[in-house]
Amino acid sequence: MPLTLTSLGCASALPTKENYFTAHVLNIRGRFFLLDCGEGTQLRLRQLDISLGSIEHVFITHLHGDHIYGLPGLISSMHLLDRTAPLYLYAPKGLEKMLSFYSEFSGRQELSFPVIYREITGAGLIQILEGETARVYAFPLNHSIPTSGFLFREKSVRKSKPRSVAYCTDTAPSPEITEWIGGVDLLFHEATFLEQDVRSAAQYLHSTARQAAQIALDAGAGKLLLGHFSSRYKETSAFLAEAREIFPNTELSTEGRTFSVPRRFISAT
Amino acid sequence: MPLTLTSLGCASALPTKENYFTAHVLNIRGRFFLLDCGEGTQLRLRQLDISLGSIEHVFITHLHGDHIYGLPGLISSMHLLDRTAPLYLYAPKGLEKMLSFYSEFSGRQELSFPVIYREITGAGLIQILEGETARVYAFPLNHSIPTSGFLFREKSVRKSKPRSVAYCTDTAPSPEITEWIGGVDLLFHEATFLEQDVRSAAQYLHSTARQAAQIALDAGAGKLLLGHFSSRYKETSAFLAEAREIFPNTELSTEGRTFSVPRRFISAT
Repeated sequence: MPLTLTSLGCASALPTKENYFTAHVLNIRGRFFLLDCGEGTQLRLRQLDISLGSIEHVFITHLHGDHIYGLPGLISSMHLLDRTAPLYLYAPKGLEKMLSFYSEFSGRQELSFPVIYREITGAGLIQILEGETARVYAFPLNHSIPTSGFLFREKSVRKSKPRSVAYCTDTAPSPEITEWIGGVDLLFHEATFLEQDVRSAAQYLHSTARQAAQIALDAGAGKLLLGHFSSRYKETSAFLAEAREIFPNTELSTEGRTFSVPRRFISAT
Repeated sequence: MPLTLTSLGCASALPTKENYFTAHVLNIRGRFFLLDCGEGTQLRLRQLDISLGSIEHVFITHLHGDHIYGLPGLISSMHLLDRTAPLYLYAPKGLEKMLSFYSEFSGRQELSFPVIYREITGAGLIQILEGETARVYAFPLNHSIPTSGFLFREKSVRKSKPRSVAYCTDTAPSPEITEWIGGVDLLFHEATFLEQDVRSAAQYLHSTARQAAQIALDAGAGKLLLGHFSSRYKETSAFLAEAREIFPNTELSTEGRTFSVPRRFISAT
C-alpha cells in the first residue's frame, strides 16, 4: 500500500548541469499521478524506470514553459507506444489550445488514446477528481499567471489513517493555503530563492526556503519537501539549513529521490 | 583549430533509458552549430558543458517532434540568460509558425535577442550560409515530410586541406546525395533499423545500418557515424557490426561522444 512522491527534477526556469525542471510522480497505492511536465520529463521517467503507460492523470500547476514543455513529447511517445487508456489533463485554461496547435502542426490524424481536459477554475478548495485511491483537490496559488496547488487525499483504508500530499508551485507565500492543506502529511512547496534574496522572491512571486518552512509550520505539515531552486545558487544545501531553522523535518526534493508516507494505524482503543 | 562533432543523443522517435533524441553540436574552429533540437537538447548541452551562448546557428533537418521539441525551451533559456546575439535558424517551411505560436502563448513581449529564420527550399545542393569558418549547404533527403541534409565545408586554412562534415537524418537511402557529399571527411547518417527490418525502413523512409554504410562507401567518406536508432533494439552493437562489413571506419554516435576531424597538411611537393 505505498504512497510515494518521486522527484524528476528540482530546477526552476533555467535547468542546470545537475537539475532538471521541477516535476514529480505521485504513486498512491499503485495509481500514478504526474505533477507538472517540463522539458525532459519523459526522459527522466524512463531513467527512473517509471513506465509512461502507468501515468493516468497529469496535473499542471500553470502554463509557464518550465512546467509544460515536456507535454507534446510525452503525448507523442504515449501515442507511439500505442496507448489506448485515456489521459486526463488538469490545468488552468489554455493548455488545450497549445496541445491542439501541436496536434495540427504535427499533421497527426488522431492519437491512439483520448486526451481529456479538465480546466481548473474557481476560488478556494475544489475537488477535481474522485479517483480509485484518492480524491484530488485544486486551490489557487499566488503567482504571475493563474496557478493551482493540488491536494491528494487518500481514500479510507481499514484500520489506517488516510494519508495526504500537497503540491504547491510556483507561488509567493500564500497563508490562506494553510487552512486548505492543514495537517497534510507531505508538503512539496517551492523555494526558488533564499531569504537573502527575499526581494527577488517578492518581485517574481516566488517563495524563499524560510517562507516555505513557515507555510509548512502553519499548516501543521508532517514533512516538507523543497524544490524549484533558482539556478543562481551553486549548491542547494543552504535551502535545507534555512528551512530547518523553522521546520526541522525538511528535505530537498532533488532528482531521483523518493519520499514515502508510511501508513499510520488507528489504535483500537 | 579543432573540428569536432559531439553527439547529444542517438535515439529516434522514442527515447530509451540510455538514449536521448538525436542531436549534435558541430564545432568548426570555435564556431558552434547545433544540428537538430529534440526535447532535452538544452539539458544535454548543459551536462556536456557546452554553453548555450556559444550556439550561433541551428540547423533543423525536418519538423518531426523528435527533432524540434527542444527549441521552445532552448530559446526560452537563451532569453533568460539575456542573450543579445542573433540566433539563426535554418529549417524547412513551418518552423517559424511553431515558434510564433509559442511566443504568443507564453505571453512574452519580446525576446532579448533576434531570431532570424532561413527557410530551406529548392532542389539539389544549395549554399545556405557563408560563415566565418565554414560554408554550409543544404540538400534534400528522402523522408515522409520535407527534410534536408547539411554539408559543412571548412574555409581554407593555409597549408591544410579544408575539412568537411555531412549530416543526413531522417532519410531512406538516397543515392543522389553521394555526389553532393562526395569525399566528405565525416558523415553522420541515420540508421534507424537493422537490415533484418529493411521492410520497416522502407515503409517509414528510414535507413538500415547496411544502407548507411553503402552510402558512406559510395560517397567516399572518411568516417561514418551512425545514430537515430529505433528503440526496438535492446542494444546498438549490431548496428556497428552490420555497417562495418561494408564500411569498416564506422562508429556509433552515442551520447557524449566527440569525433574529431584532424587537419591534413598539404604536402609541399
